[in-house]
Amino acid sequence: MTLERISILGTGLLGTSVGLALRASGFKGHIAGWNRGSEQARLALRMGAMDSIAHDALAAARSSQVAVLAMPIYATLDLMAQLAGVLGPDHLVTDVGSTKRLIAESAAQLYNKPNLPAFLPGHPMAGKERGGADLADAHLFRGAVWLFTDDPSADRSPHAAGLVKDWRDCVVAMGARTLDLDPVRHDELVAWVSHLPQFAATALSALLEDEVGDAPELKDVGGRALREMTRLGASPYSMWRDIAHTNTEAIERALLALEQRIAHLRENLRTPGLRSEFERANRFRRE
Amino acid sequence: MTLERISILGTGLLGTSVGLALRASGFKGHIAGWNRGSEQARLALRMGAMDSIAHDALAAARSSQVAVLAMPIYATLDLMAQLAGVLGPDHLVTDVGSTKRLIAESAAQLYNKPNLPAFLPGHPMAGKERGGADLADAHLFRGAVWLFTDDPSADRSPHAAGLVKDWRDCVVAMGARTLDLDPVRHDELVAWVSHLPQFAATALSALLEDEVGDAPELKDVGGRALREMTRLGASPYSMWRDIAHTNTEAIERALLALEQRIAHLRENLRTPGLRSEFERANRFRRE
Repeated sequence: MTLERISILGTGLLGTSVGLALRASGFKGHIAGWNRGSEQARLALRMGAMDSIAHDALAAARSSQVAVLAMPIYATLDLMAQLAGVLGPDHLVTDVGSTKRLIAESAAQLYNKPNLPAFLPGHPMAGKERGGADLADAHLFRGAVWLFTDDPSADRSPHAAGLVKDWRDCVVAMGARTLDLDPVRHDELVAWVSHLPQFAATALSALLEDEVGDAPELKDVGGRALREMTRLGASPYSMWRDIAHTNTEAIERALLALEQRIAHLRENLRTPGLRSEFERANRFRRE
Repeated sequence: MTLERISILGTGLLGTSVGLALRASGFKGHIAGWNRGSEQARLALRMGAMDSIAHDALAAARSSQVAVLAMPIYATLDLMAQLAGVLGPDHLVTDVGSTKRLIAESAAQLYNKPNLPAFLPGHPMAGKERGGADLADAHLFRGAVWLFTDDPSADRSPHAAGLVKDWRDCVVAMGARTLDLDPVRHDELVAWVSHLPQFAATALSALLEDEVGDAPELKDVGGRALREMTRLGASPYSMWRDIAHTNTEAIERALLALEQRIAHLRENLRTPGLRSEFERANRFRRE
């Protein structure tokens, strides 16, 4: 089977990058794009990330074999429910959302039975600290890990199973490495390796805004280390709200552990405990 | 007056970079290097950062007009005391140490009177997460801020005052911007913009080593954000021990404030408080 028609629903940074990456990897079929606001969609079209703009998300998905949802979590969940009502067992829906537990639960309810459309929950570990089609990049997924949290009990038609394999092949063709995880384990893992670094950068940046924000010349003093540790401070609330709301408990655990770890370091600035912490940190960064 | 003879005492990353940067900026005089271990000194010589290796630090400083101390804080304080006994009012000593209060106090006691050598405390805000002459870079100081915490009550001979001006000119020629601060204010400021980001990265890296360190494939999941937020985790204890010991109170205050800020964010993952923190962090990163 060859994939010929893909729709991308949501043409911000990730959706537009998927379109560009599909093209760069040699995908010859038709890509239809849809976005709630038409400006981002027109920009994505001009950038060559898609062949046409759809005016209706459901119709775009119906006329494609694979629909890629590239929007915040709650918008993804809304559209999943709507699409389940209009698609059939010959359609695959997949997504790029940052938390997977709720999406996998919805997929188990509404998809992945022989008479229902198929759903493959996905999460490329790639992005930028700012969103928008204008920052999209055909190489965004090169070398990145693309996580899937598929349901082992999914009962799909051979046709749908073929589409799942095709989409996995597309992801590899875009330069990503795939890794399969249980959705609950996924959300716990990304709380540590993705959400914790983001919220730590946000807290550090907000604190420094209060301390030295009124003296721009003092920010320059910090140099590369400060710039790097606060780059993610530019990440927009709109992108992270849904993540905070749909992975709250795991993020709370990770943040509390970081508070305790910083307190431990603070209490050991003049003891051999400081050496242990530096050595442990060095091990995390060993090649 | 023209500067003709400079000695660099300590030829690790910073000392060797100073030698390379002096050369790249057109300094035509003689640069003598000294290092406690001869391997780093020989490497710095081979890299062209200096013209000769000295076997005795005190003799090297005596035969130069400006001696640059490029070593950890306590080693700098030790050598300052020794040099004060062998140098005269025609000598300038300067340093590149990361905390300035103790060094400025020592300078006020042992230097900067008409019959004593001159001392200018300095601190280039540049470095790398790993040390060593092999990582030295002629352009390390380009665009960086080079802080000075000079003593307004320093009473120097016109000759020594000329050397101070010459060294400031050298720093600008290396591409740095100079900024003058009171030493106590310096130590408070760098606690926020330099030491806090380092210790936060160390705590985060040490925590993640415990959580996912035994599963290297999971580190890859984090992508660029994780790599960036833990890059400083590679910084060696040997470089940071003296900083922790000589700026303890200011670092404690900054770390405690970060703990409280992370706790505030943790308690507001589902409230409008999260938006406020993201917006404040965004302001810190506004262009």
